Amino acid sequence: MVYIGIDLGGTGIKIGVVDEKGLILNQGETPTLAGRPYEDIIGDMGKCMLDVMAKGGFTADDIAAIGIGIPGIADEATGNVIFCTNLGWTDVPLRSELQKYLNKPVFIDNDATVAGFAESICGVSAGSHSSVFMTLGTGVGGGIVIDGRPWSGFHGVGSEIGHIPMDIGGEPCTCGNYGCVERYCSATAIIRMGKQMMLQHPDSMMYDLCGGDVSKLNAKIVFDAAKENDDYAMKVFHKYVDYLCKGIYTIIAFLDPEMIVLGGGVSKAGSFLLDAVRERIPRYLLFKTMPYSRIEIAQLGADAGMIGAAMLGRAPIKEA
Amino acid sequence: MVYIGIDLGGTGIKIGVVDEKGLILNQGETPTLAGRPYEDIIGDMGKCMLDVMAKGGFTADDIAAIGIGIPGIADEATGNVIFCTNLGWTDVPLRSELQKYLNKPVFIDNDATVAGFAESICGVSAGSHSSVFMTLGTGVGGGIVIDGRPWSGFHGVGSEIGHIPMDIGGEPCTCGNYGCVERYCSATAIIRMGKQMMLQHPDSMMYDLCGGDVSKLNAKIVFDAAKENDDYAMKVFHKYVDYLCKGIYTIIAFLDPEMIVLGGGVSKAGSFLLDAVRERIPRYLLFKTMPYSRIEIAQLGADAGMIGAAMLGRAPIKEA
Repeated sequence: MVYIGIDLGGTGIKIGVVDEKGLILNQGETPTLAGRPYEDIIGDMGKCMLDVMAKGGFTADDIAAIGIGIPGIADEATGNVIFCTNLGWTDVPLRSELQKYLNKPVFIDNDATVAGFAESICGVSAGSHSSVFMTLGTGVGGGIVIDGRPWSGFHGVGSEIGHIPMDIGGEPCTCGNYGCVERYCSATAIIRMGKQMMLQHPDSMMYDLCGGDVSKLNAKIVFDAAKENDDYAMKVFHKYVDYLCKGIYTIIAFLDPEMIVLGGGVSKAGSFLLDAVRERIPRYLLFKTMPYSRIEIAQLGADAGMIGAAMLGRAPIKEA
Repeated sequence: MVYIGIDLGGTGIKIGVVDEKGLILNQGETPTLAGRPYEDIIGDMGKCMLDVMAKGGFTADDIAAIGIGIPGIADEATGNVIFCTNLGWTDVPLRSELQKYLNKPVFIDNDATVAGFAESICGVSAGSHSSVFMTLGTGVGGGIVIDGRPWSGFHGVGSEIGHIPMDIGGEPCTCGNYGCVERYCSATAIIRMGKQMMLQHPDSMMYDLCGGDVSKLNAKIVFDAAKENDDYAMKVFHKYVDYLCKGIYTIIAFLDPEMIVLGGGVSKAGSFLLDAVRERIPRYLLFKTMPYSRIEIAQLGADAGMIGAAMLGRAPIKEA
């Protein structure tokens, strides 16, 4: 038996046929075209799914279950999407609509949760007892895996690491609160700090790298200038690493998972970021001499959502 | 079969014979007299344990296991106490020493963890799917229960809610970091804020209630004055409730347990505190219309440690 994994994004819908080890056997994509009636979006999803199956030589009998990762939250009982801000969805019957195209069990979970789940099955945290995945992108998302299963909380609203309060009366957040983790640990935070630094220091290399246009600054430019030892970019980088370590330490102090996996756009900095984080994190530890969560960069990249979604329908496989 | 539960504190050692539902059948206590060689302390513990058993009419054959809650952390594999700051213990072979008195399986976990575990078995969170216990005392401790079992993390250093960073560059903490949750959510925080308020406002009722001596201020006096509508005490109370709600919201955003249980000295304020917390917490929620963790005051009081420790040796009982 194989599994359908669907990564529903604001721009595109990626669909794969995935085996029980997380290997993608065949895949396809269709544009989301957000703003349309949900029936049309789910219709294109259904047709693309059947097309991906057919092209890979799979029939309905081969499919054990369908899993969908969404940038929002779903009701496990009804299979309805409760919120999906990017798509403007509220209370959309995603499970029942999609079952019109293929009548199989449909599992739905948050996109960061399924990406972390994928890493725990066939990525960097494979075989771990417990892991927490942090997506460092425009915002900060989280995915918790405990004993081989994703943990989204009792009410399905957990693993929102980006909205943990980290600074009383700090930066205003899109959620209405102040000082949330994602105001300090996201790519958005790097850009904000980089811009502030550039305005104070017009001689920074960051100016050259964005062609003199502050509005073109992105996280990669800040990191690239830091790699070239631009003092101002280095200051931003070190400040960001410090903030990120505080966010990571929140996970260690609270849940103490076996592993913490960094994903999302910022994590593409690879060892430049990872080495700095690993060097700085020990100063925050409560028990200085005790082992603590291993910190790694995610491995599966853009396929993580599809793979993790597919694996939602798979019973946990216990290692021998 | 019954279970021995031991609550090892800095002042006293409480020992109970507990049945599988968490009911204390017989109990006793012996002073810790911290500072003595660990063999002497564990010796008194062993003798008191045998005495409590004998007085209750229990023999070694009746005892399934021994559990110990400690104000520190232990190595599950060796049964050694790794740290126990109050007692000055480092790497103490608690399990093997105690087994000299009664050769049964010995389980050791953190005192806040076992207290939260006790509440989840026969206290306010009994039967819940998942719960997080917060002890609001001199510091802030935490206990996580997931699927009927205590969760202390992969390395045994988790549920340290008190040391989650909550304010960048905030109040210095005993752990060496700044802005930890326990600097804002503990009884110590209430006293600090109360003293600051008293120094600015000598007309506060708090002065009368502590006989004009600022050094006698405690959390109960602040709350008592707030109950009497002293403006200054009310300001401290509301600020504390706001901080506590940020701490509680950290738990909701990250783990989303079914329940959050408030214990420790500050929780003795009961509904005065609970009502204020419940009223304020909704403003922080990310998903305003979704159900979220039920917040309650702990029920088991000083017996929680003994009961929870005893239950460490009990296999989880699945509800029918």
